[in-house]
Amino acid sequence: MRGRMNDRKSYVPPFQLNEVLNGGVVGEVVESKSNTFSPGDVVIGNLGWQDYSIAGEKEVRIIDPVVAPGSTALGVLGMPGLTAYFGLLDIGRPHASETVVVSGAAGAVGSIVGQLAKMHDCRVVGIAGSEKKTKYLIDELGFDAAVNYRTSPDLKKTLEEACPNGVDVYFDNVGGDISDAVLSLINNGARIPVCGQISLYNENQIPMGPRIQPLLLTKSALMKGFLVRDYADRFEEGTRELARLLKEKKLKYAEDVVEGLENAPKAFIGLFRGENLGKQIVKVAVTRNNTVPPYGTGI
Amino acid sequence: MRGRMNDRKSYVPPFQLNEVLNGGVVGEVVESKSNTFSPGDVVIGNLGWQDYSIAGEKEVRIIDPVVAPGSTALGVLGMPGLTAYFGLLDIGRPHASETVVVSGAAGAVGSIVGQLAKMHDCRVVGIAGSEKKTKYLIDELGFDAAVNYRTSPDLKKTLEEACPNGVDVYFDNVGGDISDAVLSLINNGARIPVCGQISLYNENQIPMGPRIQPLLLTKSALMKGFLVRDYADRFEEGTRELARLLKEKKLKYAEDVVEGLENAPKAFIGLFRGENLGKQIVKVAVTRNNTVPPYGTGI
Repeated sequence: MRGRMNDRKSYVPPFQLNEVLNGGVVGEVVESKSNTFSPGDVVIGNLGWQDYSIAGEKEVRIIDPVVAPGSTALGVLGMPGLTAYFGLLDIGRPHASETVVVSGAAGAVGSIVGQLAKMHDCRVVGIAGSEKKTKYLIDELGFDAAVNYRTSPDLKKTLEEACPNGVDVYFDNVGGDISDAVLSLINNGARIPVCGQISLYNENQIPMGPRIQPLLLTKSALMKGFLVRDYADRFEEGTRELARLLKEKKLKYAEDVVEGLENAPKAFIGLFRGENLGKQIVKVAVTRNNTVPPYGTGI
Repeated sequence: MRGRMNDRKSYVPPFQLNEVLNGGVVGEVVESKSNTFSPGDVVIGNLGWQDYSIAGEKEVRIIDPVVAPGSTALGVLGMPGLTAYFGLLDIGRPHASETVVVSGAAGAVGSIVGQLAKMHDCRVVGIAGSEKKTKYLIDELGFDAAVNYRTSPDLKKTLEEACPNGVDVYFDNVGGDISDAVLSLINNGARIPVCGQISLYNENQIPMGPRIQPLLLTKSALMKGFLVRDYADRFEEGTRELARLLKEKKLKYAEDVVEGLENAPKAFIGLFRGENLGKQIVKVAVTRNNTVPPYGTGI
């Protein structure tokens, strides 16, 4: 969404002035002219940041809030979960006893990446921006180590201590200085899925940094950018697998819920300050039926 | 070899002061205490820059100068040819009608990369530093276009014209500003084998440049560094295939031969000025038997 606020060509068109913002939304059908959808159905789609949306049949799909709360379709069972799943497994390809570092580790994607890497018997090191988060990573999610980049006087040194055998996989959610520090520690044959670059999204010019090609060359390392939609033909596999892990209580997730559509801009800006733990959700309104989840928009 | 002149840890140890430099050498056995080698055998190995070397049995292997001149074991049938072969085919994975750009295109690696890409029915664009070279690429090697980076007032614009459909594979031999210009034109799903960074080897500090992760991310692009030895278990396959293409006259190669070991330093420095066309060879001495190739060291 942040990228679309710049008026330039990218993989999705920029937002236009005075248009409603849109993003991933879970909601309840209140009225329907379609045979596919009935009032009460819980659906997900890319819809407006608004109390009520009008959507075509192909813009939304029904989700089953019995499997897991509907909001998980915006997080662990949705785009962020699938992003973690495919980025780590298809690009990162972690092997037992390797070291996997993930930045933005307490976010919606990073927290799943770390847990999946643990299931592959890796040493998992998370980078996050508060003590609450690093504590969460170790105590709740079972990370082997967690580094607070805000309080570390020498990030490279702190990471070096947390990664005594170097870094085999770096799942990059943030870019910038934090990534520079991690990259300086990569091992031969390292894999680097580039998933997000949130530290750079507010830059107005192309940011400068140390050139990384010489490092990738001498380490025979692979770096690959990706968008979750690259894996669209495998979403079913990914969702099924994540739902299974969730059901078997092998996967935990957190949601950071802000109430009220009027607070969405503040929550959105908070993402860039690292204020959220887990998936940032904006709860737009409570539905009439308490058995279904709140209508919410995921950021 | 340039990297080994810096006193820092890398994938091969640094040269030590007052030691003989070494590199790829083809020579003739003049005396042997081994049962495997006899005087007159033409061998290749990593040996000293010197008139006569003493080598153990495992340091050299016999090459057959009848298949192709012995010097090709330093070029098209040796390390540079294999580098081109594996980097392009295993990482670049070119498909018909895609655009492949190669920098250092008139060098020992680049010239093979371009010809292999043509065999895969790609549009092939070479970047080189003189008119002699760009003419060679188009007239002799059949490249579709060639760009002289030294005389182009706006390299990005010139490349844009040479690559009307963008860039699908960028085989990077040089790094720096030239690579920045190519990268700005990559298509979705581009592959970037990072083979060399010669423009940066003489830098004393880590060079700065535009951060490329945001670009790799939005284009779902893959960048992978590699060393030819990563493919050691497939050298036989690569050599066989390159020899076949050479025999069938589908592959051309050039050698830039400097006479006299005393001229090796000058030839070496010339590489960084782009003075060579094709593989830089230093002819150390003429053997006694004219049917075998000169004893030479490849740079």
